Amino acid sequence: MDYYSSQISKLIEALSRLPGIGPKSAQRLAFHIINMPKEQVEELADTMKSARNNVRYCKTCFTLTDGDECPICRSSDRDKKTIMVVETTRDLAAYEKTGKYNGVYHVLHGAISPMLGIGPGDIRLKELMERLREDVDEVIIATNSSLEGETTAMYISKLIKPTGIKVSRIASGVPVGGDLECIDEVTLLRALEGRTII
Amino acid sequence: MDYYSSQISKLIEALSRLPGIGPKSAQRLAFHIINMPKEQVEELADTMKSARNNVRYCKTCFTLTDGDECPICRSSDRDKKTIMVVETTRDLAAYEKTGKYNGVYHVLHGAISPMLGIGPGDIRLKELMERLREDVDEVIIATNSSLEGETTAMYISKLIKPTGIKVSRIASGVPVGGDLECIDEVTLLRALEGRTII
Repeated sequence: MDYYSSQISKLIEALSRLPGIGPKSAQRLAFHIINMPKEQVEELADTMKSARNNVRYCKTCFTLTDGDECPICRSSDRDKKTIMVVETTRDLAAYEKTGKYNGVYHVLHGAISPMLGIGPGDIRLKELMERLREDVDEVIIATNSSLEGETTAMYISKLIKPTGIKVSRIASGVPVGGDLECIDEVTLLRALEGRTII
Repeated sequence: MDYYSSQISKLIEALSRLPGIGPKSAQRLAFHIINMPKEQVEELADTMKSARNNVRYCKTCFTLTDGDECPICRSSDRDKKTIMVVETTRDLAAYEKTGKYNGVYHVLHGAISPMLGIGPGDIRLKELMERLREDVDEVIIATNSSLEGETTAMYISKLIKPTGIKVSRIASGVPVGGDLECIDEVTLLRALEGRTII
């Protein structure tokens, strides 16, 4: 790859190690970066370093944040008695974008996966159980609708039930705007099982 | 987007300004970067800055390179009498990957496009004509097979013909491994026009 410039080749190589960036996109990105104004490249590079160095886990919900505790856990407007359990900070962001959820979160940073050797001790479950010692009304399990997500949901639900705290699971079903004929059978069956009276 | 961390939001925003990176990929990349080992992030950031600051145009062929002249122009193994004209350094790289071309290149950095207001003076054409004062046997025009690429090819060919230097154009046709029924009509007609006796 060294036909033109070892600097560009090095950059292409570094970029292609990022997830979802193949050799072609890495090349396109590299040439874009080389043609960007110098200050913009400096800024992008510094933003990357600074994010990497300053982002920490919230001491309460374990989402990624800048300070000791995330803005959601710090906010007095949020209902601390409702905890939504998600796999990743990205899932938290997805629910925050809806603007309709007023409780707090707990980020597991993964899901139980016997296949990948990820057990209950490898995700932030112990920390969730500790939070339940305080006054909590409901735990909403919003792990993914995958095998791992469902396994994790079942495991957490069994763990919490003895405490008497309400445990719920977000609904599975047909996505809004989804075309029935394009949806897999498992989802269709889930949608049928989860039907509600109208 | 500031639900979790202003640092992450800033990074997502910076990444989503790159070409071909939508909000979702920017988010995935940002979280990946935050979880990368610190040294790797430093290295990626420094590679970006260094590539941006040190890459220059080769004084002969105008490809992007580290030094004054690119390794291809510097090499004594390359046939300096055959010049392949390409639109971008990426196109040069594509031909270099074949490993079968032994001539040198000339990178135009664009193509003539009346629609976008890019004229012959906006690409490295004058510099190409200057190179032709030296001993050159053939100019192979390998601009893209798009409207702009074809316009540029025609323009260059008309410009060079009076000098008596041989001008050729790379073939258009059905890509190797291409399925005829999936190929557009223009390409099919080109392939027919360009047929060779076997």
